[in-house]
Amino acid sequence: MTVSLDDLPIRADLRGQKPYGAPQAPLPVALNVNENTHPVPEDVANDISDAIAQALRDVNRYPDREFTELRESFAQYLGHGVDSSQIWAGNGSNEVLQHVLQAFAGPGRTAFGFEPTYSMYRLLSRGVGAEWLAGTRGHDYRIDPEDAARQVADAHPDVVFLCAPNNPTGTPLSLDVVEAVYDATDGIVVVDEAYQEFAPKDSPSALTLLGGRPRLAVSRTMSKAFAFAGARVGYLAADPALIDALRLVRLPYHLSALTQAAATAALRHADTMLAMVDEIILQRDRMGATLEALGYQAHESWTNFILFGGVADPAATWQALYERGVLIRDIGIPGHLRATAGTEEETTAFLEALSEVGGR
Amino acid sequence: MTVSLDDLPIRADLRGQKPYGAPQAPLPVALNVNENTHPVPEDVANDISDAIAQALRDVNRYPDREFTELRESFAQYLGHGVDSSQIWAGNGSNEVLQHVLQAFAGPGRTAFGFEPTYSMYRLLSRGVGAEWLAGTRGHDYRIDPEDAARQVADAHPDVVFLCAPNNPTGTPLSLDVVEAVYDATDGIVVVDEAYQEFAPKDSPSALTLLGGRPRLAVSRTMSKAFAFAGARVGYLAADPALIDALRLVRLPYHLSALTQAAATAALRHADTMLAMVDEIILQRDRMGATLEALGYQAHESWTNFILFGGVADPAATWQALYERGVLIRDIGIPGHLRATAGTEEETTAFLEALSEVGGR
Repeated sequence: MTVSLDDLPIRADLRGQKPYGAPQAPLPVALNVNENTHPVPEDVANDISDAIAQALRDVNRYPDREFTELRESFAQYLGHGVDSSQIWAGNGSNEVLQHVLQAFAGPGRTAFGFEPTYSMYRLLSRGVGAEWLAGTRGHDYRIDPEDAARQVADAHPDVVFLCAPNNPTGTPLSLDVVEAVYDATDGIVVVDEAYQEFAPKDSPSALTLLGGRPRLAVSRTMSKAFAFAGARVGYLAADPALIDALRLVRLPYHLSALTQAAATAALRHADTMLAMVDEIILQRDRMGATLEALGYQAHESWTNFILFGGVADPAATWQALYERGVLIRDIGIPGHLRATAGTEEETTAFLEALSEVGGR
Repeated sequence: MTVSLDDLPIRADLRGQKPYGAPQAPLPVALNVNENTHPVPEDVANDISDAIAQALRDVNRYPDREFTELRESFAQYLGHGVDSSQIWAGNGSNEVLQHVLQAFAGPGRTAFGFEPTYSMYRLLSRGVGAEWLAGTRGHDYRIDPEDAARQVADAHPDVVFLCAPNNPTGTPLSLDVVEAVYDATDGIVVVDEAYQEFAPKDSPSALTLLGGRPRLAVSRTMSKAFAFAGARVGYLAADPALIDALRLVRLPYHLSALTQAAATAALRHADTMLAMVDEIILQRDRMGATLEALGYQAHESWTNFILFGGVADPAATWQALYERGVLIRDIGIPGHLRATAGTEEETTAFLEALSEVGGR
């Protein structure tokens, strides 16, 4: 007798749902989930290995619950006067955002974002029992400060997510939007800067706005710029009081000693890792120009990926690329597909395959 | 202007709470949180390091969301015909238990345990918005099958936790309690076997009851027997349908590639690690006999720790031991303290310090 999920006393709101996740297919050119396709350089990997080997000596003991050294490393990396009492971290930025939602949203409360945006905001919100409220964007997925403030004031959410630059569209977000939204709400405002390292060097981070804004949090990840998606390390900077709130909802010892050691070691090599970012930006911009030359509309991107429109049949184009060994992402926006900027070779492979496939 | 937690729009149910956690004090003899005080042997640690170094080559990519190889390793380790489709894992068994609660409890539902028991059950339940229902134990913290079934039938919980053997008391739990409780509820029954490896070799695991019981889950951890508290690896075996339910609530890619590699490598050395367990059991039994000889009441323990009564002033005894460099745990049971069995030297240090302190 085989039992199915529906035979179990699962929560009513989960019935019929499917697990989140892009297909994990072992294709030669995988540009679907905005990974950094450059492996961690060997000397950096060796240093990380050494740090982990060291941590293994005490792995029989619970890790430092306060991940003190890692918090200091993040503060130093972020700069802008951020100190370690303002730092939080988790197993991926999803966990960090979940902590924010557990502390400030949850059952009976609401969370808000301007769609299309990172789809996990909605899933994380529902996961903690909060209601998700979807705002809208203007032309070319941009957000206007006054319109944003109006939408947020009307929705009255407990937590607002601003993805800056935005996933899955790549759209920049100017700091006047952050300021306007902050002033329009009594709730928590999370600026998700997962892709901030891929923005122009002179574009200011929302970290510059933290002073005097205790309800503002700026989240980051090591998955992208630091090529550390497999290590699952996200982090956040905010007022120390907001960090204290996250301590109430995190699982004890949520960050392993191995994760703490690996991330701390990787941050020592920030310069090397950020040099790789420059190479990815070159490929992104080349990809954008070539997509335009092929007749697609490449949306402006400050991230490591490009959303492009003008695709007659996204599912068919996706499939044709898949058959050529190139995996990109159909994120469900009509007429659009999204591709990550890879190495020079991967980016070329994608562009050549797309040009063969045609199908605009 | 300094902002405090109370100035932020935190959830009402979190207001005034303090974060969970035993003090982390760097004392020479730390026997407070039931760690395995034996470091991972050097050859095992080297093998784990090699596996992690290998994983670092692809750490720029997201990890295998299904942790396929690790699931297979757990299935093989557990035996009893368990296969990899019946395995789940998380960053510590706390995360695994949280997944169960998110899928089957949460807001408007209830979770139940026989107190005193692992205090995280209550905290995890409240954390997901479920109500916690506390059952009671009989003489010497034992649970009688008929009484247990009656309590569970009366409480009608959505999730029942059975800690076997029980933390913080060390008490064995016989499988007829599991059977009786399972039959008394339509909810999920979680048997938490975090300390099962420290039970007598011939005592059957609840794994033997999984067949035909799709609402039964047996959780384990690598923190204790595998000396892996710092690596944060918990796991669970259940019907594949129950595992599917957990996929709906886990964060995508919740287990890092480093964690997966480390745990898989450690499991290859199960024999070495379980030999350490035998040494710990020797120390536990010596500790129990000496505590009795000193005039304390050592409760029967099938774990790596002993709860002992007959302490006139637990706080004072705890403090006096602390001042002698020995850290144990006051878990709030009047007249009692709890100590982990350490290495031979650590166990001796504790027993000598206690004998100096006196204070029965």
